[in-house]
Amino acid sequence: MINLRNDYSSVAHEKILKALIEYNNKTYIGYGMDEVTEEAKAIIKKEIGNKNVDIHFLPGGTVTNKVFISHVLKPYECVICCDEGHINVHETGTIEQSGHKVLTVPTYDGKVSCDDILKVFNVHNNEHMVKPKLLYISNPTELGTIYSKKELIEISELCKKCGMYLYVDGARLGTALTAKTNDLNIKELTKLVDAFYIGGTKNGLLLGEALVIINDELKQDVRYSIKQSGGMYSKGFVNGIQFKVLFEEELFYEIGKIQNKLAEKLYNGLLSIGVNFISKQVTNQIFPVFDNKIIKELEKHFSFEMWEVGQTKSTIRFITTYKHTEEEIDNIVNIINSKITSLAAGSTPAIGSSNI
Amino acid sequence: MINLRNDYSSVAHEKILKALIEYNNKTYIGYGMDEVTEEAKAIIKKEIGNKNVDIHFLPGGTVTNKVFISHVLKPYECVICCDEGHINVHETGTIEQSGHKVLTVPTYDGKVSCDDILKVFNVHNNEHMVKPKLLYISNPTELGTIYSKKELIEISELCKKCGMYLYVDGARLGTALTAKTNDLNIKELTKLVDAFYIGGTKNGLLLGEALVIINDELKQDVRYSIKQSGGMYSKGFVNGIQFKVLFEEELFYEIGKIQNKLAEKLYNGLLSIGVNFISKQVTNQIFPVFDNKIIKELEKHFSFEMWEVGQTKSTIRFITTYKHTEEEIDNIVNIINSKITSLAAGSTPAIGSSNI
Amino acid sequence: MINLRNDYSSVAHEKILKALIEYNNKTYIGYGMDEVTEEAKAIIKKEIGNKNVDIHFLPGGTVTNKVFISHVLKPYECVICCDEGHINVHETGTIEQSGHKVLTVPTYDGKVSCDDILKVFNVHNNEHMVKPKLLYISNPTELGTIYSKKELIEISELCKKCGMYLYVDGARLGTALTAKTNDLNIKELTKLVDAFYIGGTKNGLLLGEALVIINDELKQDVRYSIKQSGGMYSKGFVNGIQFKVLFEEELFYEIGKIQNKLAEKLYNGLLSIGVNFISKQVTNQIFPVFDNKIIKELEKHFSFEMWEVGQTKSTIRFITTYKHTEEEIDNIVNIINSKITSLAAGSTPAIGSSNI
Amino acid sequence: MINLRNDYSSVAHEKILKALIEYNNKTYIGYGMDEVTEEAKAIIKKEIGNKNVDIHFLPGGTVTNKVFISHVLKPYECVICCDEGHINVHETGTIEQSGHKVLTVPTYDGKVSCDDILKVFNVHNNEHMVKPKLLYISNPTELGTIYSKKELIEISELCKKCGMYLYVDGARLGTALTAKTNDLNIKELTKLVDAFYIGGTKNGLLLGEALVIINDELKQDVRYSIKQSGGMYSKGFVNGIQFKVLFEEELFYEIGKIQNKLAEKLYNGLLSIGVNFISKQVTNQIFPVFDNKIIKELEKHFSFEMWEVGQTKSTIRFITTYKHTEEEIDNIVNIINSKITSLAAGSTPAIGSSNI
Repeated sequence: MINLRNDYSSVAHEKILKALIEYNNKTYIGYGMDEVTEEAKAIIKKEIGNKNVDIHFLPGGTVTNKVFISHVLKPYECVICCDEGHINVHETGTIEQSGHKVLTVPTYDGKVSCDDILKVFNVHNNEHMVKPKLLYISNPTELGTIYSKKELIEISELCKKCGMYLYVDGARLGTALTAKTNDLNIKELTKLVDAFYIGGTKNGLLLGEALVIINDELKQDVRYSIKQSGGMYSKGFVNGIQFKVLFEEELFYEIGKIQNKLAEKLYNGLLSIGVNFISKQVTNQIFPVFDNKIIKELEKHFSFEMWEVGQTKSTIRFITTYKHTEEEIDNIVNIINSKITSLAAGSTPAIGSSNI
Repeated sequence: MINLRNDYSSVAHEKILKALIEYNNKTYIGYGMDEVTEEAKAIIKKEIGNKNVDIHFLPGGTVTNKVFISHVLKPYECVICCDEGHINVHETGTIEQSGHKVLTVPTYDGKVSCDDILKVFNVHNNEHMVKPKLLYISNPTELGTIYSKKELIEISELCKKCGMYLYVDGARLGTALTAKTNDLNIKELTKLVDAFYIGGTKNGLLLGEALVIINDELKQDVRYSIKQSGGMYSKGFVNGIQFKVLFEEELFYEIGKIQNKLAEKLYNGLLSIGVNFISKQVTNQIFPVFDNKIIKELEKHFSFEMWEVGQTKSTIRFITTYKHTEEEIDNIVNIINSKITSLAAGSTPAIGSSNI
Repeated sequence: MINLRNDYSSVAHEKILKALIEYNNKTYIGYGMDEVTEEAKAIIKKEIGNKNVDIHFLPGGTVTNKVFISHVLKPYECVICCDEGHINVHETGTIEQSGHKVLTVPTYDGKVSCDDILKVFNVHNNEHMVKPKLLYISNPTELGTIYSKKELIEISELCKKCGMYLYVDGARLGTALTAKTNDLNIKELTKLVDAFYIGGTKNGLLLGEALVIINDELKQDVRYSIKQSGGMYSKGFVNGIQFKVLFEEELFYEIGKIQNKLAEKLYNGLLSIGVNFISKQVTNQIFPVFDNKIIKELEKHFSFEMWEVGQTKSTIRFITTYKHTEEEIDNIVNIINSKITSLAAGSTPAIGSSNI
Repeated sequence: MINLRNDYSSVAHEKILKALIEYNNKTYIGYGMDEVTEEAKAIIKKEIGNKNVDIHFLPGGTVTNKVFISHVLKPYECVICCDEGHINVHETGTIEQSGHKVLTVPTYDGKVSCDDILKVFNVHNNEHMVKPKLLYISNPTELGTIYSKKELIEISELCKKCGMYLYVDGARLGTALTAKTNDLNIKELTKLVDAFYIGGTKNGLLLGEALVIINDELKQDVRYSIKQSGGMYSKGFVNGIQFKVLFEEELFYEIGKIQNKLAEKLYNGLLSIGVNFISKQVTNQIFPVFDNKIIKELEKHFSFEMWEVGQTKSTIRFITTYKHTEEEIDNIVNIINSKITSLAAGSTPAIGSSNI
């Protein structure tokens, strides 16, 4: 069974595990107050070109989103995000559980439009309704697409105009920043947003995300919110060690690049054998459409997610990881090709025989 | 600098890290739905003598307490715990943040008394006050003491009588169950409570706690609460792997035993050189009292927690871990002895000389 | 300035105020535990044909919705309602503040469709998403329309099938039950839902709503939730007195009838002078469409709500109350007619002159 | 049965009810945006000597406390109050339900001490504990005692020094300000605190409290929090009318004075027949101690609250209201005297007979 389901399906990149063993010969102060964590933060600050940011390492994406959003919003303030946004659909109402409404705008190829945001913002203008205060976007989006520099500048300016914070969920930021079509680097991103997080768990770490807060107004007492949410770990240094290695060795970008390259190879391979997709490949998620009969066959060989189930055809999601090899990708294309061919062949006689 | 501050000061027990590398050659389904996690649960169920329990692996103690307590309580229901209870003092109001009051009873040697609980329970008898529904205790307690079988039976019966759930925070359960004076095994514990958690982070794991739910009424939809709290990790199998190793190899008890044995050695060593303690050694936390001048000296050699600061004397906390060795303990005692001696010597001549 | 804005624009029906003075010569136990409150409940129980229900008097609609919904849902459970639902738009995220997501379905003439509900219900089928557990509808709806007996039966059966509670916001229930086209009485309503509330504030009371809980499973400890929400009033008997009078004297239906009758008269009057509406009149809210120039004129004579603002034409909302008289309605129609006529007259010469 | 239980046991002061009828001939804009509400606010602002405050009328004390406290605190911030504080004991965990811990200090004659507050404040100094940010006190206290000007100045200065807000629950403020021993007027109070509320419900109103916010930093968006909590009423003008009358006619002080005077008369009357009290009379609550046998007798004539139940003697609470008369108070004393006498008489023969 080949894994095409997730980029969080194996323990960690071997360099990360090696580092954990190496650093096991010392003891550290708990709760992220240790020196290795400080070193990791310093490296990331250098990479993003801003020494004045606050960085907090958290164990997972959902808790990171929850901590930041609930920390900065007052009880009656709300988030705007696209209707397919992770916080809106796949985090079991975490934001609402912390007391805040999630207002939605339509999703276009995974992204939000400024017009839609402005419309929702303008409608919510009195105390009988929630007050929009933060825009949440993901880069890459849930569909693997990415925001261009121009798009992000427009969104950033709109947020400033509306007095809203801009926050970017970067669960797979490594693949966004290393995508072929990307024109935005992490230094520019840092200048355009109030906060974002750098995903580690889906980028080779055993676990861990780095929340980066740029806006000075939002920095105070964040450690209280992290602790209160259950997101502060006694062995905080485990995050420090991992992120230090991730950015010290450029592993962050390296993994992103590999994952994208393999996705491109898989995408092109499938295109060449006539497979359709609901969107173009940009990062390491691709969304092919197959006859349901073929999908049943594929399930015998691969693990993957169903994306949109139809009567005869459905969309599925393939994710490539740094663990896959080029040979494996070739093999995957071959298997799929043989399934398509044999199904077509299988049908022809059937049709033929009915002709007799 | 010798660490006597914490049992969560190094990455993990080497067997745990070795296992993580070993299991890194395969891929797993996410969010704890994998087979290794199932195996780990099966081993624990066997160990506690009950196949009908639900086990959930969570990343840390605070989030485990929060998930379970907020899952089982209705909005107006509250927890009773001792005034030094971890959820009452050291979790930044996590329980209150999830909407529930923590009612307190006095602490005796770290423990609660049935009389106090009953009194608080009886007073809270109408809708103008919160409704007590869960008793939270820790074993070992914040002072390293443990509940005897008889004490736990009494508490368990009281809770049943009052219609309250009984929940045990077992952050350091391994040291409680392997304490010399302990007369309660994990099978008996399981029979007396509605739920408890087995601490992994302070018992050799990189991270992870195992929440065990015994009461059938409390089992439904717990995964929803875990996910909503941000406590569900994509790489759930990392917890599965660790707990499998912890219980497969009896590492759980082994680490507990070593930690207790070294604490006993340190306790006896310090007793022999005239050090006083605020309570007897039971598990791996001991609480010596020193002259403040000596504490200043000790800070040059050891890291530890201040427990209760006085004008001339203060109580500090030493914690022993599986990383310490018998030689190191001897060394610690020697250093402390020399500090005490030299301070005494230093004062005597000084006084003497002033006499001349 | 004639009030067409609200049915909560004057202190209370004179019979209600008279009763408050009458009952002021005695003293009562606080918090709704008095005898008058018991009498009021008994009368309502008789009226709805079910002595086994629990009735709680609350001060307003928002707090009633919040108390009931947050009382019955577990933290990860959510409400389904139409996207124009009052709890979704006009209660400042009260439901979310109490921790629960509001999932929306499209609105058709103010109402929900079973197909849409089932679709949303089916999609939310695992712990990464919230769990639908309660359907919230309003009768009459935000557009003044009402559910037929057949529609409510279908919705009720769907909810049972899905294991969801059905809750009806009856802020203006008096006008729904007395609408000409209504085929559902309060006894039937009571049989089809798990809970509903009978609006008092918009039906002649100084303030007060009556929450009726039919489903036995949802009755326990509701007074705790009312108190905790700040919705329990020391002078609970003030609600008791008012509801006793409201149902003892059939004032509840009488007010509903008058309000509907006047709305019908206003609707027909405006129809007869050529005014268009976005929906037919059913209860005491009507939604005429006017040229924006005319609306500006109307604002000099009447107070009303803007409903949907367009470039040249807009929809506004007129609400009739028991305080209006037939003469006043005639007068309103006449004023509007003269505005329309004079605007048309004003335009014609203009057009005429340009023709010359 | 004579009511000595509560000062919220009858509908309202007759002048209030008369005003409601008078104002019923007009219509008003909803949600407190009407002119009468503005007039009421203007009168109160004049009375407290500060035109720059924000005033919000709310329906009850619990919701007022909850709205203000949850509006100004961040999720991890907490309240300090005395252990007998209303929010700590008698509001069903409303503050905790809104996410905030209530830290307690001991109560001395109903009041807090600066030393205790400072101690609690100093202990809570890192992110593993909640962060104290608001001090809640009541004036008069739960025991009917009042803060002197000197005491309030000291508390106010301590709060400023600690960066904590000072908030006064004035549910019975009218009796505090008119107490014989009071040396603090409402203008001085306004200068010393960040916010307080003027109780109406226990001071003659049908319902309603006036939240006064002095600190500019805490004023923004309070209407959002009021609406979200369910504390914003469509008929906000009902509060406006009542408070206008209350302060326009000095009814506020008049009622306070009468209630105190009658309490003093009752206190002195009971003293003169040998009754003991747990504290001196200051406002309209007094706390006599009786033999339990006498209490059983009193229950046949009066309604009152049990305060502290003992084996042979218990403390009860008597509250006087503006509805009582001097004759009634004399009558009450006489009844109690006769009960005491007859019980004493009843015992003597019994003892006597055993002597024979």
